[in-house]
Amino acid sequence: MRDAYHEELQALNDQLVEMTRLVGSAINRATTALLDADLTLAESVIVADDAVDALRDDLDRRAMDLLARQQPVASDLRVIVTTLKMSADLERMGDLARHVARAARRRFPDPAVPAPLRATVVEMGQVAELLVAKAGAVIASHDVEEALQVERDDDEMDRLHRELFASLLDVTSPYSIEAAIDVTLVSRYYERFADHAVAVARRVVFLVTGQQPQDVAEHV
Amino acid sequence: MRDAYHEELQALNDQLVEMTRLVGSAINRATTALLDADLTLAESVIVADDAVDALRDDLDRRAMDLLARQQPVASDLRVIVTTLKMSADLERMGDLARHVARAARRRFPDPAVPAPLRATVVEMGQVAELLVAKAGAVIASHDVEEALQVERDDDEMDRLHRELFASLLDVTSPYSIEAAIDVTLVSRYYERFADHAVAVARRVVFLVTGQQPQDVAEHV
Repeated sequence: MRDAYHEELQALNDQLVEMTRLVGSAINRATTALLDADLTLAESVIVADDAVDALRDDLDRRAMDLLARQQPVASDLRVIVTTLKMSADLERMGDLARHVARAARRRFPDPAVPAPLRATVVEMGQVAELLVAKAGAVIASHDVEEALQVERDDDEMDRLHRELFASLLDVTSPYSIEAAIDVTLVSRYYERFADHAVAVARRVVFLVTGQQPQDVAEHV
Repeated sequence: MRDAYHEELQALNDQLVEMTRLVGSAINRATTALLDADLTLAESVIVADDAVDALRDDLDRRAMDLLARQQPVASDLRVIVTTLKMSADLERMGDLARHVARAARRRFPDPAVPAPLRATVVEMGQVAELLVAKAGAVIASHDVEEALQVERDDDEMDRLHRELFASLLDVTSPYSIEAAIDVTLVSRYYERFADHAVAVARRVVFLVTGQQPQDVAEHV
């Protein structure tokens, strides 16, 4: 039977998973708002980020409270401190989804992404969503092998990021400076979103094993 | 007389101040490397970031060890957990200085910043250095009023960020798409560097008072 303390730890973990769900929904809707120049949707993403921040604040308060009351050592201490770091990553991913939505709002009613670049941005949105879904799955499962896999998926985001820059620089299809600024920033937001999803997965490896992913990966 | 425990806490604080020094030097040299297209200097910044990462790793290990051994509650617990968050901010500031240096290296021997935009980037570098110096000072002094001031200084960085975009979009002086991408990314790096310096100062307010800056500011 689980004791009250471990139930509280489990509740923190559930809250992290809930954050991945909110943030996954945010990046999905932000991508749609960006590509469809949908102002209402963009504003709903911007407003909804407050819920992610509130969840992070609540989670951090509960984690601090657990630290103070239970005085954990060894692996339990590692779990709580790592949870605080994961909540910071997820909160930041919420900010980045909001930044994408703001880029859509800034250019409304024009689309911020020129038509020839849309397909790459669609893919970036899909990879971002996949990465946060996988991060959520590994938080729930504590599966180390699955966590190590997330890093490899991030290579796809880096490839798309480079592809977008190459397209912008393609002299046969000249873009405006405004489009270049917008696309550069948006691409950077997706790339950072993916980096944080990878960071979350890496933290699960540390949380479970007490070792850094590179040291674990050698033995898997 | 201070006990061994509080000496260890002080040592953590000193390490944070040391991180602000390294990161301040990094952004100073990265800015020079960027503006002078100085490849050797850029590479020295890129390599030097490992020292920031190592300092963060050491600090985090010592903080975790203190948590496990001393089982602090209340304000001591708050100090250690907040220290972990500040080391994460400072480590990220090191990454951002490295990103600026990489932008310089990517375009070498060409300068990444077109001549008419140099003055604004010079100013961004100065504001970034000032902000990290102030963050270091408030970590050392734990002066709440000084910490609250840092946020106001960040307004200057936001103004420069907007000024740079406005200059890029100025139709009388057309820039290349490549320059627009470089300048957009670099400007974003400086802006994020400044955001993290502000976050550090805000965390000092929380560390000292146990309250968020907005709640403290009303009473100062």
